[in-house]
Formats: sequence, structure tokens, C-alpha cells
Amino acid sequence: MYPARFETLIRQLEKLPGVGAKSAQRYAFSMLNYPEEAIDEYIDALKGLKEIGKCKRCGFISDEEYCPLCKDKSRDDSIIMVVAYDQDVVAIEKTETYHGLYHVLGGVISSSKGIYPEDLNIEKLLLRIDESIKEVIIATSPTMDGEMTALYLDKILKEKQVLVTRLAHGLPMGASLDYADELTLIKAMNNRRKMED
Amino acid sequence: MYPARFETLIRQLEKLPGVGAKSAQRYAFSMLNYPEEAIDEYIDALKGLKEIGKCKRCGFISDEEYCPLCKDKSRDDSIIMVVAYDQDVVAIEKTETYHGLYHVLGGVISSSKGIYPEDLNIEKLLLRIDESIKEVIIATSPTMDGEMTALYLDKILKEKQVLVTRLAHGLPMGASLDYADELTLIKAMNNRRKMED
Repeated sequence: MYPARFETLIRQLEKLPGVGAKSAQRYAFSMLNYPEEAIDEYIDALKGLKEIGKCKRCGFISDEEYCPLCKDKSRDDSIIMVVAYDQDVVAIEKTETYHGLYHVLGGVISSSKGIYPEDLNIEKLLLRIDESIKEVIIATSPTMDGEMTALYLDKILKEKQVLVTRLAHGLPMGASLDYADELTLIKAMNNRRKMED
Repeated sequence: MYPARFETLIRQLEKLPGVGAKSAQRYAFSMLNYPEEAIDEYIDALKGLKEIGKCKRCGFISDEEYCPLCKDKSRDDSIIMVVAYDQDVVAIEKTETYHGLYHVLGGVISSSKGIYPEDLNIEKLLLRIDESIKEVIIATSPTMDGEMTALYLDKILKEKQVLVTRLAHGLPMGASLDYADELTLIKAMNNRRKMED
């Protein structure tokens, strides 16, 4: 009933994760009101998608051979933080407190989803470990699969004689203690630290 | 940090209603995995957006002068159903029980949002009313603004000596009575009907 290409747009929007028929329609109608420049920018961005690949070194999304983080000479290349997804790099970068490099796995080991170590960007990580690397920080999420992945990486990285660390677990800042789940509370108690004066 | 055109894509997706920075990122990453044909279809659909306008007669979204519904000679052109949005036409059409024509207002009167009768597609509705029109069904939503719009339309349409009806209000089918709000229950009681044998 809608114009054919409008239907196509709705169908494409329906493919987005978590977007159903209703939302896709709402999105498409809102796009009708976009100014022409916005549409052109959008089209250009979609065209650009075809050229996007991964950084040869760390696996982070990039449209060049190496990503800007790996190319940045001011960063400390003796520390590698291992994350599951590209978005995690952006989250860590926003803190503006980490100045080492990254390695993006492209997921986590998950027996339920059938994702095994060989499906992840692990081989290239091992190739990056030499005597110049002082520390590998494992920054997978504290979920079941994230923990499994961290344990696996810890095991194979220790064979390389490198210091392996893991992001701390505990109460999230600003959250109320009685809202924390039991596991978080147990982690927070076990990992308690002496107050600094 | 992301490739420039990928950032543009995220920014464009963030403009969609109810989509925040996190969802926009998630959407953009999922689009990385689209096959090339899907991207091309998407681009084509976006190009088509510029050609989309409104049906000259009923105001429904159309890329031609008249929409397929107005052009369909098999439909009963003596009944007009007045709806607020294009999406409402699609919802009614899905029922496959209405065979008259439509009139899309493009919104509802809302003093809080500063939308007045002159902002809506009402003038053209009045021009459509002549002796050939047997009934105008007002199908705005049973919200405060929808009711206000219905009352306003009823007033001005009655001057045209045409039968004006309103969609029934009552309990939604399949819903549990104790989940219905008070206003709906009151409407359902007031509009009760004799059981058919």
C-alpha cells in the first residue's frame, strides 16, 4: 500500500536488532522529514560500509590497513587490553585514562551459541606477544561467557610468560548496595581493599 | 575513533525516534554484516524518499499524484474514514473489512503541542464532502487529543449534513477485564449492546 521503495526502507529497518514492524514504520516515517543533505549523508555513509574492514594488527573496525589507535605513536605499545567488541574500545577510550593498545576478539567464547576460540581473533593476539609486551589486560564483560573467555585467555597467555590482569569486579559506582545482585556483592567483599588515608 | 563514514551512519541512526547513542551503535554494527545487495536496496530506498509526497485527494503517503487506494475503482467512494496518521490506514487495511476511502489528517489537534485545525489536512476533507458521501467515520485514537479532534470534526462536518460516526470504544479483544483502565470500563459499560441470539 505504501510506495514500493518506502516498503523497502521499512523492510531494511526491520532487519536492525530488536526492531519490529511497528518501530521500523515509525523510523521510516521519521526519515521522510529528513532534510535532503541528511539523506545524502546517509547514502554516503551506507556506501562507505562496503569499504570498512578490520585493523590488521588489533582487529578494531577500520577503513584503512591500521586503525588510528594502532597508528598513534604516543600510545604505550607495551600494554594490550583485550576486549570482546569494537564498542568496548570506544567505552574505554571515553574514560581517557587508558593509553595502551587494544585487541578486539570479535566476540566471546560461548558454548550455547557455538562460538569457540578458533572463531575469535585470538591467534593474532598470540602473535603480538613478545618481550616488548609488559601486560595484557583482559577486559571481557563479567558475564558467564566473558569469564570463560578470560580464563581461556589467561591460560594460553601465561604460557607466553606475560603479566595477565583482569578488570576489577565490584559494586558499580553510584549504585545502591541493596540493588546489587549477590554475585556482585560476593565479588565486592572478596576484592575489598584497604582504605587509603 | 571509528571510520568517519561509520560515525556519520551512527549519527544518522541516532536521529531516529527513541534511538539513543547505544542503540545507534548497535544498529550500525549490525549493518556492517548486511550483504551488498541489501545495502544497495537500502541506498535505493533512501533515494526514493525524496520523491515521496502525499496523495492529492486523501493525503496518504504516495509517490504518484493519487495513492493506490484512491485510484482503486472497486472501493466504495461514498464512505470516508478519517484517520490521524498514514500508519492508521495500514492498520485498518490489515483487517480486510473496510472498503471505503480514507482521509489522512497528518496528526491530531493538540493544544499542548500547539497543533491547531489549520495545521491539519482538514480543508481538503471538507472539499470532499458532497451529496455523494453517505458517511464519514472518524477514526482518531481514543486519547485526549484524538477525542478533541473527533469532536471538532463532528461539529464542522455536521454543518455539511453528512452522517458522522465514530469507531466504538470498549474492551480490547483478548484482554483481561481487570487489566482495563477505568475509563475503558466505563466506556464499555455505557456502550453495552444486546447480545445477539
